[in-house]
Amino acid sequence: MSSKDNLKAAFTGESMANRTYLAFAKKADDEGYSQIAKLFRAAAAAETVHALNHLQRMGGIGTTMDNLKEAINGETYEFESMYPKFIEEAKTEGDNRAQWSFEVANKVERIHAGLFEKALSEIGKNEEVDYYVCSVCGHTHEGKPESNCPVCGAPASKFEKID
Amino acid sequence: MSSKDNLKAAFTGESMANRTYLAFAKKADDEGYSQIAKLFRAAAAAETVHALNHLQRMGGIGTTMDNLKEAINGETYEFESMYPKFIEEAKTEGDNRAQWSFEVANKVERIHAGLFEKALSEIGKNEEVDYYVCSVCGHTHEGKPESNCPVCGAPASKFEKID
Ligand SMILES: [Fe+2]
Ligand SMILES: [Fe+2]
Ligand SMILES: [Fe+2]
Ligand SMILES: [Fe+2]
Ligand SMILES: [Fe+2]
Ligand SMILES: [Fe+2]
Repeated sequence: MSSKDNLKAAFTGESMANRTYLAFAKKADDEGYSQIAKLFRAAAAAETVHALNHLQRMGGIGTTMDNLKEAINGETYEFESMYPKFIEEAKTEGDNRAQWSFEVANKVERIHAGLFEKALSEIGKNEEVDYYVCSVCGHTHEGKPESNCPVCGAPASKFEKID
Repeated sequence: MSSKDNLKAAFTGESMANRTYLAFAKKADDEGYSQIAKLFRAAAAAETVHALNHLQRMGGIGTTMDNLKEAINGETYEFESMYPKFIEEAKTEGDNRAQWSFEVANKVERIHAGLFEKALSEIGKNEEVDYYVCSVCGHTHEGKPESNCPVCGAPASKFEKID
């Protein structure tokens, strides 16, 4: 493999390690191991540095215009191809928990693609708006939600404002 | 593929999307597109929800004792096998920037493995300590660093305390 491929593989590994340690930190806090939770958060922060170093060196960060286009492509792949296939396979297997996880993500990726497309079409004159994210399903909402999450049904109190 | 494999693939995709959007948000801020930066951060937060949902459903979160063992295995694979191979290939290619990124990560993963091993051996009676992470190379330090980063040479001011 070339260093370019290796940077991609290392970026993947570091990205997964970061997310895994974040989950492990929450679990450690739940179990009362606050010091170990802190260590997992510290390691997660370090894996963020590694992931971003690798991403930068593999040329993975373009101009914001390019980055929006890449985001739209990625989201579109997920909601047109990846998640629909995964949802069908989960139905065939009768794996309801996996099916739910794929279905809500699928709906949210379509919304992300729309938000990125709007941002791209208005670039340089983007309207100021706050985003709120559903902590249950990831639904991404322009402005403060007044009612239940339209994707997963969670109450409006489950949304978190993004700064 | 089974839903278990699909959950893993989706976890990988969501983890990478989150990290990528984080980098895109920084870039948008650098370019003065603060509203688009906010949108990237919102989508990144949504991909966090998706990644953690998938991880939980694939049975990827154990007890803290299990999680520490898995973390040690992952770190050990990286510093014993993955990064040494990538470093050699970067040297062969003369890709100095990739080599640096692999070398600092390699040193830090060894340190992470040691910290996790210590945490595991002292589980339930872990000493209270703050961790500081080097924002240049990810070096993870017990207590406030008084001098330059031993991994990358960055000044002590580049360390960030983890809460
Ligand atoms: Fe790392
Ligand atoms: Fe998305
Ligand atoms: Fe939701
Ligand atoms: Fe997602
Ligand atoms: Fe690590
Ligand atoms: Fe450093």
